Amino acid sequence: MIKKNNISVCFTTAQFKKYADGVSTVVIIDILRATSVISTAFECGIEAIIPVKTLEEALSYKHKVNHIIAAERNTLPIEGFDYGNSPYHYINSDVKGKTLALTTTNGTKAIHLAKEHKVITASFINIDVVANYLQEDNNDVIILCSGWKGLFNLEDSIFAGALSEKLLASHQFSSTCDSMQAAIQLYSSGKNNLFDYLSNSAYRNRNNTDDVIKDTHFCLNPTIKSAIVPIFIDGKLRKV
Amino acid sequence: MIKKNNISVCFTTAQFKKYADGVSTVVIIDILRATSVISTAFECGIEAIIPVKTLEEALSYKHKVNHIIAAERNTLPIEGFDYGNSPYHYINSDVKGKTLALTTTNGTKAIHLAKEHKVITASFINIDVVANYLQEDNNDVIILCSGWKGLFNLEDSIFAGALSEKLLASHQFSSTCDSMQAAIQLYSSGKNNLFDYLSNSAYRNRNNTDDVIKDTHFCLNPTIKSAIVPIFIDGKLRKV
Repeated sequence: MIKKNNISVCFTTAQFKKYADGVSTVVIIDILRATSVISTAFECGIEAIIPVKTLEEALSYKHKVNHIIAAERNTLPIEGFDYGNSPYHYINSDVKGKTLALTTTNGTKAIHLAKEHKVITASFINIDVVANYLQEDNNDVIILCSGWKGLFNLEDSIFAGALSEKLLASHQFSSTCDSMQAAIQLYSSGKNNLFDYLSNSAYRNRNNTDDVIKDTHFCLNPTIKSAIVPIFIDGKLRKV
Repeated sequence: MIKKNNISVCFTTAQFKKYADGVSTVVIIDILRATSVISTAFECGIEAIIPVKTLEEALSYKHKVNHIIAAERNTLPIEGFDYGNSPYHYINSDVKGKTLALTTTNGTKAIHLAKEHKVITASFINIDVVANYLQEDNNDVIILCSGWKGLFNLEDSIFAGALSEKLLASHQFSSTCDSMQAAIQLYSSGKNNLFDYLSNSAYRNRNNTDDVIKDTHFCLNPTIKSAIVPIFIDGKLRKV
């Protein structure tokens, strides 16, 4: 019998050290909105993304040639930054060939947390190509949900379920991970209408401005699809 | 508007410090099997239970008058102990009036972790009386799933969903906690047949002996019901 690759789902960054093995490929998820923004920015022509932990570090890239900077804290954009954490900021701009320094509340921190592993990022925008990549990668997979400040969130968990379902369908993966099973069941409950499914979620309770609702629709049911897998190498996300 | 009491669900002991507030009532869950055993033991006449962290500490009670000791590690009973972690050990014995010193892999550790709060334990055996107690208690509630060595597990999470559903039905509680919503959805998916629902769970994969399967049936669909709420006071679980 050929040994199948394992799938684990880690619901929060606070638990990652219990899953980290230094060997598996880690898929970072921050559906609302960092990893959706990353997919969108690449699809709009961004050449590389530097995920940074602090606002200060992001600002240090402000006057570098061909660089743009973006920041978000607690869902809000930050004064002095070119962009925020909305996919529409990139769709509506000419960002081709630029390098983006990005810092967000949860997602960019999760990338750094996992950096001893091979790290890629995923969203509903690039879910198909990520699933294909992981099959070719032929490695165990840890799906790391960024969550909210170390807590479980629904939106990243349902995406973990959607991706796990695709991987299991390939028959190349197996798992006895309870959180993966839970993620698949949560995705099954919500997949007919993810936006409605999340109507009572903590994210939606925190964020009810028109702009964020528009972003949420986009991130859950993206009107663009991307064939780009962002991979974290030498401090930058680049196209695989 | 009257302020409602809050419900939070903490999926793992490893995350408890993010939920601990020193004020809420904490409900400890270890369905397979510690908190089910605790309910059963009280229902069978045990007077008090001392949850201890180590085997050594439990053994120190072995020769105390009117004390019995029980231990489990990684689902197995331990040599030298009177009892293990099976509810049937208590159902089939005369334990009336005795004090039980109990140590298990996850559940008894969770009790100690939360001891700065008011701590009670719950299982499907005493779920109704626990829900009534929490309504009378009129306090915010943290449902703490013991999980498996710091990881999420399905069996504790579905119980958290079952209890949350009862509390919300009383209209005295509210919540914006994503893990509570997830727990309720998981319970809804499985409640028609909890044993089948858990057929691919990590617990069931680890434990397929006839005895543990019999225990699992009992803990999920108990043939006894208890009106006792175990509360942790001065190092002992006692009846409220």
